[in-house]
Amino acid sequence: MEFTLNQIAQILHGEVRGDGNQQINMLAKIQDAKRGQIAFLANPKYEQYLYTTQASAVIVHKDFQPKKEIQSALILVDDPYSSFTVLMEQYHKMISFQKSGVEQPSYFSESSTIGKDAYRGAFSYVGNNSRIGDNVKIYPQVFIGDNVTIGDNVILHPNVKIYSRTRIGNNCVIHAGTVIGSDGFGFAPQEDGTYKSIPQMGNVVIEDDVTIGANTVVDCATLQGDSTIIRRGVKMDNLIQIAHNVEVGKNTVIAAQAGISGSSKVGDNCMIAGQVGIAGHLVIANQTSLGAQSGVSKSITDEGQRMLGYPAIDIKDYFRSYAVYKKLPDIAHRLRDLEKLVGTSSPHTVETPDNGQK
Amino acid sequence: MEFTLNQIAQILHGEVRGDGNQQINMLAKIQDAKRGQIAFLANPKYEQYLYTTQASAVIVHKDFQPKKEIQSALILVDDPYSSFTVLMEQYHKMISFQKSGVEQPSYFSESSTIGKDAYRGAFSYVGNNSRIGDNVKIYPQVFIGDNVTIGDNVILHPNVKIYSRTRIGNNCVIHAGTVIGSDGFGFAPQEDGTYKSIPQMGNVVIEDDVTIGANTVVDCATLQGDSTIIRRGVKMDNLIQIAHNVEVGKNTVIAAQAGISGSSKVGDNCMIAGQVGIAGHLVIANQTSLGAQSGVSKSITDEGQRMLGYPAIDIKDYFRSYAVYKKLPDIAHRLRDLEKLVGTSSPHTVETPDNGQK
Amino acid sequence: MEFTLNQIAQILHGEVRGDGNQQINMLAKIQDAKRGQIAFLANPKYEQYLYTTQASAVIVHKDFQPKKEIQSALILVDDPYSSFTVLMEQYHKMISFQKSGVEQPSYFSESSTIGKDAYRGAFSYVGNNSRIGDNVKIYPQVFIGDNVTIGDNVILHPNVKIYSRTRIGNNCVIHAGTVIGSDGFGFAPQEDGTYKSIPQMGNVVIEDDVTIGANTVVDCATLQGDSTIIRRGVKMDNLIQIAHNVEVGKNTVIAAQAGISGSSKVGDNCMIAGQVGIAGHLVIANQTSLGAQSGVSKSITDEGQRMLGYPAIDIKDYFRSYAVYKKLPDIAHRLRDLEKLVGTSSPHTVETPDNGQK
Repeated sequence: MEFTLNQIAQILHGEVRGDGNQQINMLAKIQDAKRGQIAFLANPKYEQYLYTTQASAVIVHKDFQPKKEIQSALILVDDPYSSFTVLMEQYHKMISFQKSGVEQPSYFSESSTIGKDAYRGAFSYVGNNSRIGDNVKIYPQVFIGDNVTIGDNVILHPNVKIYSRTRIGNNCVIHAGTVIGSDGFGFAPQEDGTYKSIPQMGNVVIEDDVTIGANTVVDCATLQGDSTIIRRGVKMDNLIQIAHNVEVGKNTVIAAQAGISGSSKVGDNCMIAGQVGIAGHLVIANQTSLGAQSGVSKSITDEGQRMLGYPAIDIKDYFRSYAVYKKLPDIAHRLRDLEKLVGTSSPHTVETPDNGQK
Repeated sequence: MEFTLNQIAQILHGEVRGDGNQQINMLAKIQDAKRGQIAFLANPKYEQYLYTTQASAVIVHKDFQPKKEIQSALILVDDPYSSFTVLMEQYHKMISFQKSGVEQPSYFSESSTIGKDAYRGAFSYVGNNSRIGDNVKIYPQVFIGDNVTIGDNVILHPNVKIYSRTRIGNNCVIHAGTVIGSDGFGFAPQEDGTYKSIPQMGNVVIEDDVTIGANTVVDCATLQGDSTIIRRGVKMDNLIQIAHNVEVGKNTVIAAQAGISGSSKVGDNCMIAGQVGIAGHLVIANQTSLGAQSGVSKSITDEGQRMLGYPAIDIKDYFRSYAVYKKLPDIAHRLRDLEKLVGTSSPHTVETPDNGQK
Repeated sequence: MEFTLNQIAQILHGEVRGDGNQQINMLAKIQDAKRGQIAFLANPKYEQYLYTTQASAVIVHKDFQPKKEIQSALILVDDPYSSFTVLMEQYHKMISFQKSGVEQPSYFSESSTIGKDAYRGAFSYVGNNSRIGDNVKIYPQVFIGDNVTIGDNVILHPNVKIYSRTRIGNNCVIHAGTVIGSDGFGFAPQEDGTYKSIPQMGNVVIEDDVTIGANTVVDCATLQGDSTIIRRGVKMDNLIQIAHNVEVGKNTVIAAQAGISGSSKVGDNCMIAGQVGIAGHLVIANQTSLGAQSGVSKSITDEGQRMLGYPAIDIKDYFRSYAVYKKLPDIAHRLRDLEKLVGTSSPHTVETPDNGQK
């Protein structure tokens, strides 16, 4: 990034207080910022730093009234945090799309096409009849199979593997080592205990604005014509498993090491925490929030629920039960004491001592 | 697939009703099938579709009596589902083994050998003294180390990495990004709190008919002469961890993100669900079924059990306990009420209010 | 390894009993060892094998008094186990650093440098302005980005991917498919439910003597100048997730499929078992031991605790509660019986039958 403050203000529809011609080359936190950098102030807790920061400029609310003298220039906007995220996104794009040209050796089938402003790193591979858009950055050792379609402004980091028939939209980013379109896990049990492989003929469709982390796997759908679908705006972390015929709704966020089993349909704007597991053939309502390590074994039909545990229940109920769980030995003792006092020994009672090794 | 119906009937030892000379080029579900495709009917629930399907042919039971007129040709067999899986397997092989020839640049040590009908993709690497059988498909960017043995009809998808000394049988499929034979996790603790690396000199043996998903890892055994063993017919999904010296019994199925710790021995025909963890040095009996996210910390000696939870217990017991778990706050209140009524306050009782944040 | 027994005794500061000129070429367990191999005896349980082993030599304690005749030569040392681990480490280094030279084609930017005794495998890639030390082994298909620094005696197994700006110390080993420095999972929520990408400008710093398994992911820090840090002597297994801005303390051991969320700081000499999850922004004290599949949602401030469960509690408490958990249906029945006996039915009681499907 190498912009004048005036140019940045224009992007943000903001107003400059101070020298609009100075150069800005970096974003920073207000407490860490140095000359040449721009920061923002949204949370009043951080106001103190405004009067000591070395930032060349700070983005503040248009109604902000400083209590002391400020060294930095200001940009006045409606929503400082939101404006800063716009800048971050711009900056992210700038630094991500710097590579261009073709490094050799690389492999590109004559039957495939790629648009302008492409980067194709060394040892990258593009199979037959694939169609790749403009401004696509294919890092070294990426594999793209046959009959793949990729939109514009897509970044495939080193060694991403895209199986044949996959379709990827615009503005997607996929990180190193991730596999898109591998065979779904489908086997037909035979009477002798062995399994026969079910051909996996579907594909994966990834819509626009999707980001996928590193070493994640998205399997293809089973039947020809069917797709595993990652909807627009989904953000996925590392080491995630998305099984065949899954659909992930738009703007859903999935943290690392979560797994979604075959044919489940996750709604829009869900938050799925790390190491969550979702069983197969379920429907998860929009805006569902699943706590870390939860296991979901039944469909969730009401929108906006926060769930935890295995099988997942309402998060407040889980914690209430867990609070008692931690005192279960005490509860068991008290129950025994009561039984003695009342003079009964329930026929259900197991009277043998229990050392927890049962 | 481009067969006549007569040819397919011959493969299935079935009998054709209708035009046996028509061409079939695809498998499909009876409710979705189109002209040129073949479907099957096993479950009576789907019989309605038989009378409306556009499939060119449907596989049905030899004793099936249609209730209405059928447009499609029929193949009469003993077991329609099983026959369909045979077709699927045939089809799977056909579409999987299409690639052939050598793409350049690729690396193949002069001291190694490969059989006929091979495919070696660009940027694939084969080290020294490796022996590779017939009809093996090595996709782009695959790595095969030194002294590796691979049987016939094996598919290594893009970027599979096979460490030195690995032995792979016939008819195996390994998906993209999977690592076979990496060092076991072995370190000898020293008095100063550091660790020394234990050389990992064993190997991995994968028997015939094994399928392994994407981005999975199978570590080699520790000592020379020892092997981590994946027995015949095992089916493994994506992102699975198999530690050093593990043995997985034949026809066992392991779902995504499960992990088996060092030296554990899993029996034959087990079903291990997603995100299951098995501790080290255990023995798991044949036909054990482990529910999703279970943790197994002790050997399972009786065959055919279904287990769940951490540590895993009988699945029915788990759910019975979990049903009460969800009502623990209620149980705690009732116990307190009883104690008041009986006029005692147990010495075990913690009387401070509990907000679940303890 | 091809040493005389005298040479080995010198490394171990031990004393030879027997023919010191014989050649030793392999380490082995005492019960399996053959001619030409060396074993050790530390645990008296294994003493029986000392009198039957075919090992050419056995390392024993200097005060050891044999009860029968021994065929093998002996090396007398202060601590047989520790001496054996020293030999193992030596041997590990010898076998790991055998490769040398440059295989073609490989890609190495003119602006980067590498020290002596390097190995660069075919299809490996080194970007711009990277500095690589002596005796570094870069296996085939490894990717190293721009401005990367790597110390001496480092092994990068096939297809390791090192993003730009990463710094790696000396004596590190990284296994196949692992990704270092991918973007942290950072997105700024917008009012319309979408997310904007936060540029990830920090890096990863891996100190000396670190080992990382296969298909693991370590994300870079968010802000320029910040680092995700893996301290000296850390040992990490396969398929682990380390999020942005995490710090892992020295000599901490992390087993497979564990995950640490953003900005958490794990202490020194911790033991993190398989499939453990640690939430973000936590501090974990030194010497903490986390049992398999634990979930940690709060900081752990006291050193040396052993924890289990979700959220993790003291491991003994967990097992005591779990012992009661398994009997919860019995507890519920007994409570109901008591209530009947005492002649009350608590207002909290839900009297509808519960089949566990609630």
